[in-house]
Amino acid sequence: AAKRALVLCAHGTEEMELVITVDVLRRGGIDVTVAGLEGPGAVECSRGVRIVPDRALADVDTDRELFDAVVLPGGAKGAKTFAETPRVLELIRQQLAAGRFLGAICAAPIALKAADAGKGARLTSHPSVQATLAADYDYSETRVVVDGKLITSRGPGTTFEFALQLVETLAGKAKRDDITPTMLVHTPSA
Amino acid sequence: AAKRALVLCAHGTEEMELVITVDVLRRGGIDVTVAGLEGPGAVECSRGVRIVPDRALADVDTDRELFDAVVLPGGAKGAKTFAETPRVLELIRQQLAAGRFLGAICAAPIALKAADAGKGARLTSHPSVQATLAADYDYSETRVVVDGKLITSRGPGTTFEFALQLVETLAGKAKRDDITPTMLVHTPSA
Ligand SMILES: [Cu+]
Repeated sequence: AAKRALVLCAHGTEEMELVITVDVLRRGGIDVTVAGLEGPGAVECSRGVRIVPDRALADVDTDRELFDAVVLPGGAKGAKTFAETPRVLELIRQQLAAGRFLGAICAAPIALKAADAGKGARLTSHPSVQATLAADYDYSETRVVVDGKLITSRGPGTTFEFALQLVETLAGKAKRDDITPTMLVHTPSA
Repeated sequence: AAKRALVLCAHGTEEMELVITVDVLRRGGIDVTVAGLEGPGAVECSRGVRIVPDRALADVDTDRELFDAVVLPGGAKGAKTFAETPRVLELIRQQLAAGRFLGAICAAPIALKAADAGKGARLTSHPSVQATLAADYDYSETRVVVDGKLITSRGPGTTFEFALQLVETLAGKAKRDDITPTMLVHTPSA
């Protein structure tokens, strides 16, 4: 069966990080559900793009529906909402405790800290929240960081690499290599 | 006054190309209108992401509202709709005849050919439509091609470079350089 991913969004989510992640995961054969924190209606993203989630997060029973990966896109305001939503913090803790994958990019790793999860793990984030994270985590400036089940990345311009890493992790290197050329992605060598 | 861009979308538009273009242009201070060919409701993009346009194209009077740039994202089905919609073909011809900018990425340059516009110009596209375009245009495999008022590019993975070129063209190199670092975009040197 296809691996499943749950990608969260809220008002203020960075639309490039949300959409590149969802699109690339679907190209990689992952069954993706986009879940909105504010219900089933469109979220207004960080630069005004309005995106309709597949479902309201309130309608996803994450005790029964298990997702191989839960992914949090960035955007300062959206990430703040994640970090202030008990349901999301519980989901983060639950996901890591069960040994399933958690992805977070840009400002979203602040939700990990708010959940008191993964302390000490190696991770990265947008430079704007580095100071918030550096004391509690093994902070890296690498564009994509994998530490156990935690996969983190830095911003809009690193989202292709982040999403391709998620595809490689969930569906294998061959799938990653299969979908990369047609997207004309330039993969930095460093 | 801020420069204005009209970005088209339709069912089947490539959501990464649409969203990266809109987001980066707005970061660059461009006043962007996302116009939907099928009305004011959400378009279902190529990988199932649903995006709500700002307005229906039918409600944009392009004889009175002049856009410094009209931009067509790709996605095979969305580009086919552009190429089969007389209103879009007329808009392409009008834009170039008036000496204003036209941007097209991925499969979208096929609409240029359908409009019988810019023949002989240097351009690029997604490799999948190269054969359709090579006889009528000076085809290039460069990631972003600027020829006069026509700006073209190749696919999802070249959209940051495409959108940053539009920002440079409309708002200047200083603005481009200003917004690039915070996005963590890796700009290929070749
Ligand atoms: Cu961000």
